[in-house]
Amino acid sequence: MSSEPPPAPSAAAAEELAAGLSAATLSKKQQKKDARKAEKAEKATQRQQQQQPADAEDPFAANYGDVPVEEIQSKAISGRSWSQIGDLDDSAAGRSVLIRGAAQAIRPVSKKMAFVVLRQSMSTVQCVLVASADAGVSTQMVRFATAFSKESIVDVEGVVSLPKEPLKATTQQVEIQVRKIYCINRAIPTLPINLEDAARSEADFEKAELAGEKLVRVGQDTRLNYRAIDLRTPSNQAVFRIQCQVENKFREFLLSKDFVGIHTPKLISGSSEGGAAVFKLLYNGQPACLAQSPQLYKQMAICGGFERVFEVGPVFRAENSNTHRHLCEFVGLDAEMEIKEHYFEYLDKTLKLPYEEGVQMLKEAGTEIEPMGDLNTEAEKKLGRLVREKYNTDFFILYRYPLAVRPFYTMPCYDNPAYTNSFDVFIRGEEIISGAQRIHTPELLAKRATECGIDVSTISAYIESFSYGAPPHGGFGVGLERVVMLFCALNNIRKTSMFPRDPQRLVP
Amino acid sequence: MSSEPPPAPSAAAAEELAAGLSAATLSKKQQKKDARKAEKAEKATQRQQQQQPADAEDPFAANYGDVPVEEIQSKAISGRSWSQIGDLDDSAAGRSVLIRGAAQAIRPVSKKMAFVVLRQSMSTVQCVLVASADAGVSTQMVRFATAFSKESIVDVEGVVSLPKEPLKATTQQVEIQVRKIYCINRAIPTLPINLEDAARSEADFEKAELAGEKLVRVGQDTRLNYRAIDLRTPSNQAVFRIQCQVENKFREFLLSKDFVGIHTPKLISGSSEGGAAVFKLLYNGQPACLAQSPQLYKQMAICGGFERVFEVGPVFRAENSNTHRHLCEFVGLDAEMEIKEHYFEYLDKTLKLPYEEGVQMLKEAGTEIEPMGDLNTEAEKKLGRLVREKYNTDFFILYRYPLAVRPFYTMPCYDNPAYTNSFDVFIRGEEIISGAQRIHTPELLAKRATECGIDVSTISAYIESFSYGAPPHGGFGVGLERVVMLFCALNNIRKTSMFPRDPQRLVP
Repeated sequence: MSSEPPPAPSAAAAEELAAGLSAATLSKKQQKKDARKAEKAEKATQRQQQQQPADAEDPFAANYGDVPVEEIQSKAISGRSWSQIGDLDDSAAGRSVLIRGAAQAIRPVSKKMAFVVLRQSMSTVQCVLVASADAGVSTQMVRFATAFSKESIVDVEGVVSLPKEPLKATTQQVEIQVRKIYCINRAIPTLPINLEDAARSEADFEKAELAGEKLVRVGQDTRLNYRAIDLRTPSNQAVFRIQCQVENKFREFLLSKDFVGIHTPKLISGSSEGGAAVFKLLYNGQPACLAQSPQLYKQMAICGGFERVFEVGPVFRAENSNTHRHLCEFVGLDAEMEIKEHYFEYLDKTLKLPYEEGVQMLKEAGTEIEPMGDLNTEAEKKLGRLVREKYNTDFFILYRYPLAVRPFYTMPCYDNPAYTNSFDVFIRGEEIISGAQRIHTPELLAKRATECGIDVSTISAYIESFSYGAPPHGGFGVGLERVVMLFCALNNIRKTSMFPRDPQRLVP
Repeated sequence: MSSEPPPAPSAAAAEELAAGLSAATLSKKQQKKDARKAEKAEKATQRQQQQQPADAEDPFAANYGDVPVEEIQSKAISGRSWSQIGDLDDSAAGRSVLIRGAAQAIRPVSKKMAFVVLRQSMSTVQCVLVASADAGVSTQMVRFATAFSKESIVDVEGVVSLPKEPLKATTQQVEIQVRKIYCINRAIPTLPINLEDAARSEADFEKAELAGEKLVRVGQDTRLNYRAIDLRTPSNQAVFRIQCQVENKFREFLLSKDFVGIHTPKLISGSSEGGAAVFKLLYNGQPACLAQSPQLYKQMAICGGFERVFEVGPVFRAENSNTHRHLCEFVGLDAEMEIKEHYFEYLDKTLKLPYEEGVQMLKEAGTEIEPMGDLNTEAEKKLGRLVREKYNTDFFILYRYPLAVRPFYTMPCYDNPAYTNSFDVFIRGEEIISGAQRIHTPELLAKRATECGIDVSTISAYIESFSYGAPPHGGFGVGLERVVMLFCALNNIRKTSMFPRDPQRLVP
């Protein structure tokens, strides 16, 4: 195999460019830019010719090969331009294109013919090699293209053609007749996960089972151990794009309502919400911990006059919970705002169920709940089913939680201090949002903290903030991974965390 | 003083509503909604009347007083609506409005007259109390309004009037003739910071000095100790709104270029970039640390097929740097992307200065730099001045840094491996962005890590990711606080971190 750097644009392409220049009325600036581009390309070609003696045995040796890393160390910009696979459609027919992608599938047909499917994030395209002197494709080149390992990064230059029938690639209408092919970075020959196995849907498994076939199933832990491969499946590419958009919508909506995005510290003294689920460390010799939520700080921002704030950032919970929906580190979408009279207003069509009523519904269905206690995961799921049966909705709000099961800073109810002005929002029986009115007077706050067993001296700066003039306020928090998990109806929160952290997992 | 809850809308307002209903063609849904609103308001009035016996001595006792916390515990929505101070202008003249704000200034004029300036984030408005039986304002009410402490949260109901001359408040054109005033939450009588002192500009100090006056200056540490007050100054309100928009612009631009926003773990095993500046902790019994940057993870996301990613999140540096521009925790704006040929393209008008040339410029100006060493803060500032003199720009890019001063994952230069394909972007002689092409082959990466003294077994998952098919790529990181500091020409990074963390500060 020859070693060949990415080539410069062809003479035909240069002519095309020149024709374009004379036909259109271009600005002097643009002409200068194009001239510089052409000059750069010319220089790149010269360098290649100096460095790369042709393979004596194969007259087309310059059309394929491995590109050594030294060639990718940013020498210069050649002026060539790469197409995005997802942009290719039948309007490109007959055009010469240059693409870079991962070799998802490599199928040798004969000594003279092979297929290589290249992938760029969610798009794939089929590339065809047919040995022919006219095309500058040798049998050695076909052999080269079938010899590099799957998932290697490959540059292909070729002509777009229209197949007679739609292809299996995402770019169904076009394929590429390969003229040049270079391997930019090889993958190891045997990958720890076969991407084809990892990409299968449950429907694929069902179909195979009906046909009596047995397919390899890649386990969750194996996926997470080799996340850099697992992330390439179409479903993972989709999940993390959805996650990005969920965050965007959250931000856009709040920004449109005059909320200010803030960042509060994750390294704090004292524990943010009490309890044992806190990661401890030494901060320059002082005991410190990681914030379990931005709660105390977003409230101090409200005391600081910001009226409405939100934060997107990591929250840390040292809980030893090995469930499908708990992580030790997740992304919190948090908001906090001044309120005038009432902490909670919602569309009438959304079901708002008092906590006591939820407990009663569960009781009638045979599940006894300690009236002032919390709902466990099982009870929540059951309530979700009961609500679905009775009210025909997967989405509802449970409010007026018992004081005993909410954090110390939650405002008690005016008519019964054993309950609180708080709510959780559920999707399919799983909590996605937790919110409440907060206590805004330092006396009541200190009293509640003490009652909850928190040493008020560790949070004195927080409590004192409410003695400098503090408006009534409330807010909520959303777990990004959990929302995406429930929205996409996935069965495990590890599927919506790019590099999840649970009691057992700290790598990769 | 009487204790009076926020009142319900007046009968006149209810009539107005009814008139509006008959005049306009409203949907049945809207009519129902309005009816419910009126009903709620009615109920609230009834409750108030039941609870609040009138003060026998003052016939207007119901028009002022402290609102106990029980009244703010979200009983119901009365239907009243609050105006935003910033929205008030002369078009509101003659209208009755209800506002809530912090009592920034309280000025008694006589027994019968007083001014109260209310503030909402960056807006202030002057409220006037004049004792008069017609207005329902008693001398007791005037006394009440001058007795509560500054920065207390106050509700004012009154009529908008137009003063003869523009006022000193931000809402210069209007003032409010107070009819009712209630204190929602009192501040302590003596605040640890006087907001007027904290809000002064350097220009104010200069003017006072010329006049021979001495003004109180609030020190940086005092400000940070009582951040909930300090944040209320107009400059701080502006700084954190600018910060929010800097982040937004970063996100919007990258999203428009098909970058995907991701979140990577902050709890990691091994140290992310080597060196001693790492916070260590125990993670379920295992040694772990806080990420010094999302570097390794954003690169693994590139290996995972995401082509272009960015992250906004906290980064942790356990450095003992007590400078004006270092923090132990700051917000990183990070991006990483696949690159085809060259790591770095920029507008021609931006100055791109090779590192060697920068060192030469400093040498000629009398500052000797170890050729393969880094620039210290002083040298960077001096280079900034030299560049300003020679090229007339505050903004420039320094590139081709020596290998020895860049992290192990940085791609060496093709023509001289003692230098790297890396760059820093400077504003006024201070670095705001650091970026580079990264190494994309596992062999070179492992070699460089070892040469930098990093135990490759601690980052094996990272290095192995590049053996599964990894595209050439590069990226950069920006410190949010530092950009805002330099953009606003502030002299200390603690001014652009809401709750800063430095070697000495872990609270609030």
